[in-house]
Amino acid sequence: MTAGQSIATGAEPVLSELVDGVQWLTLNRPDRLNTVTPELYDVLKARVVEAASDRRVKCVVLTGAGKGFCAGKDLKAAASEQSETAGEWLEARIEYLRASSQISKMLHDMEKPTIAMVNGAAAGAGLSLAAACDFRIAGEAAILTSAFVKVGLPGDMGGTWFWTRILGAAKAKRLYLRSERFDAQAALAFGLVDEVVSDDGLKAHVSVLAAQFASSSVTALRFAKAALNAAPTCSLDEMLEIEAVNTALAGVDAAMQA
Amino acid sequence: MTAGQSIATGAEPVLSELVDGVQWLTLNRPDRLNTVTPELYDVLKARVVEAASDRRVKCVVLTGAGKGFCAGKDLKAAASEQSETAGEWLEARIEYLRASSQISKMLHDMEKPTIAMVNGAAAGAGLSLAAACDFRIAGEAAILTSAFVKVGLPGDMGGTWFWTRILGAAKAKRLYLRSERFDAQAALAFGLVDEVVSDDGLKAHVSVLAAQFASSSVTALRFAKAALNAAPTCSLDEMLEIEAVNTALAGVDAAMQA
Amino acid sequence: MTAGQSIATGAEPVLSELVDGVQWLTLNRPDRLNTVTPELYDVLKARVVEAASDRRVKCVVLTGAGKGFCAGKDLKAAASEQSETAGEWLEARIEYLRASSQISKMLHDMEKPTIAMVNGAAAGAGLSLAAACDFRIAGEAAILTSAFVKVGLPGDMGGTWFWTRILGAAKAKRLYLRSERFDAQAALAFGLVDEVVSDDGLKAHVSVLAAQFASSSVTALRFAKAALNAAPTCSLDEMLEIEAVNTALAGVDAAMQA
Repeated sequence: MTAGQSIATGAEPVLSELVDGVQWLTLNRPDRLNTVTPELYDVLKARVVEAASDRRVKCVVLTGAGKGFCAGKDLKAAASEQSETAGEWLEARIEYLRASSQISKMLHDMEKPTIAMVNGAAAGAGLSLAAACDFRIAGEAAILTSAFVKVGLPGDMGGTWFWTRILGAAKAKRLYLRSERFDAQAALAFGLVDEVVSDDGLKAHVSVLAAQFASSSVTALRFAKAALNAAPTCSLDEMLEIEAVNTALAGVDAAMQA
Repeated sequence: MTAGQSIATGAEPVLSELVDGVQWLTLNRPDRLNTVTPELYDVLKARVVEAASDRRVKCVVLTGAGKGFCAGKDLKAAASEQSETAGEWLEARIEYLRASSQISKMLHDMEKPTIAMVNGAAAGAGLSLAAACDFRIAGEAAILTSAFVKVGLPGDMGGTWFWTRILGAAKAKRLYLRSERFDAQAALAFGLVDEVVSDDGLKAHVSVLAAQFASSSVTALRFAKAALNAAPTCSLDEMLEIEAVNTALAGVDAAMQA
Repeated sequence: MTAGQSIATGAEPVLSELVDGVQWLTLNRPDRLNTVTPELYDVLKARVVEAASDRRVKCVVLTGAGKGFCAGKDLKAAASEQSETAGEWLEARIEYLRASSQISKMLHDMEKPTIAMVNGAAAGAGLSLAAACDFRIAGEAAILTSAFVKVGLPGDMGGTWFWTRILGAAKAKRLYLRSERFDAQAALAFGLVDEVVSDDGLKAHVSVLAAQFASSSVTALRFAKAALNAAPTCSLDEMLEIEAVNTALAGVDAAMQA
């Protein structure tokens, strides 16, 4: 499904707006706490691909319309999924999960900062999407929980990978295996979000941060993010070489702009 | 030595009890703060192997009898170790350490949650055993310290590996190289334990958590733990594939049980 | 340039003193907040190489003269850099960055503890040098900031690698991409430093810690540090083998000294 077709069949599941170099992507199923459906993933993936390659976009903000950020999979919508055989169902399911997980990968890989503006409930895949972003700024109303194991699932959209690198091994296990709920302040103390601000002040606060990124050196940001993404598993020798080459290149870039 | 032989020669060094899907393993040398001996390691290893493969066991709790959790190696017992030559001693020692370290590996690898109920002193190898578990719940009386360097040793039972992944590089170095003692609250603040509860309430608190695991989806827990164990060093692409396949399989599993 | 030549041309850019097994290395451009120049890097590298191989040195402390620790690159001095062509400039720059980054590598790799005594501003490359050390003890006057992106650079001297392993992925991204300033207490809360002490008490506090290392088992420290450095990316099996062999060797070492 394309964005255009989506409009034809009802409300757009993802709103997209480019303002002063910042791409705002708003999950737009407010009556369902922005739970994900195949259609929503389809449109979100297209928007994230565009944002990654659009040179006018310096920073991406992902948020939710209404009271939720993203409450995971829409279990009601999912109940209607059907297939001829268990084998076919399994194949279709793997392909669907594999395809949608590219959203997380692109949020992580794109060489510009990504911010999750966590305005409300983030659960299941919604928690994974927040983790795929470089930054997580929450409003006081935010509630975060993995909840995967609670519904018999091990977790998807890269969440186990992101949270282990953000929180360390013990907290990531606690987050996934215990299915606890974290309100905004508990999430801050645990490390699930970087900052908590008032619900009323959330958008203004995130706008200031996004504007800072939009006015920073594109070259410095892209090289720094790439290095930080490589850091957990590359060797120190590899990193010193990456940094030396990129620092020199950034110097040339700065000189050419001067 | 087998468990049966151990009974014949005196008190069992590890008590083992299966209650409602939870395997309680209690180090049982209370007069020596449950310090480890070759016999204790031998029996503990057998019990952990059994717990890993026994499908009735949904969760493992490791704790200590009396006032200690596990105060490391029994230096008094170790003083009686003898060998013909330094070379022989070295070979025997490497083989012993290699064999006993499999206890840590199995606690980490087994595809069901493991909880260290830290009821008292955890030092040296005892601290490593606590780190090998997925969760660490401490009573107020707990005291944690690495203490390896203090006695001229670099650390064993996987502790350097586990703590680096739990605490990050700087805190793990502090834990090992400085040999500080952490009481329960300091351990909580530093990240050595997940929670601290009153000594009187410790067993009840851990029982509730273990019961939660025992009643959770076995499939969800095993896939989630395996993914979280793989997360620190696998690539994001590898993880997205693991999650997609396992989430689909867990869906089939849930459908077959419905 | 050698240390001797440096003396001939003016003040020594790095002071070096061995006291009771502790090598004190003091960056000595106090009027420029110890910002780095090619000369300073040259001398610092020589001193770090010597400290790594000198068996009298049991511990290294890196600090700054006057009010700063190290405020990064001396942008004033750098402005005078010249080259014939952009290509030549790029080549020279990469070689310079590659060569100086070996200082960070040696601080990290040397098999004895290294302590950054952060007495004042640590910015840019100065922040990276602090991260390359095993421990960071700050005085109340310390101010830490990455500031690389602010001046259009992605970061050098291994900082992206060290901080990711110390802080986790999210905080490292925040440190680099947002360029915030952390005073001593904020740095402690964020994890940038291990401890904060009064400015007046800083040297005495670090001296006590360094003396503890100087009187610890050299073998235990070297094996423990090497294992902790390997921990983030080696497999658990690899670590258990490293620990078994090294623990056995440390036992032989202790017996030979008894």
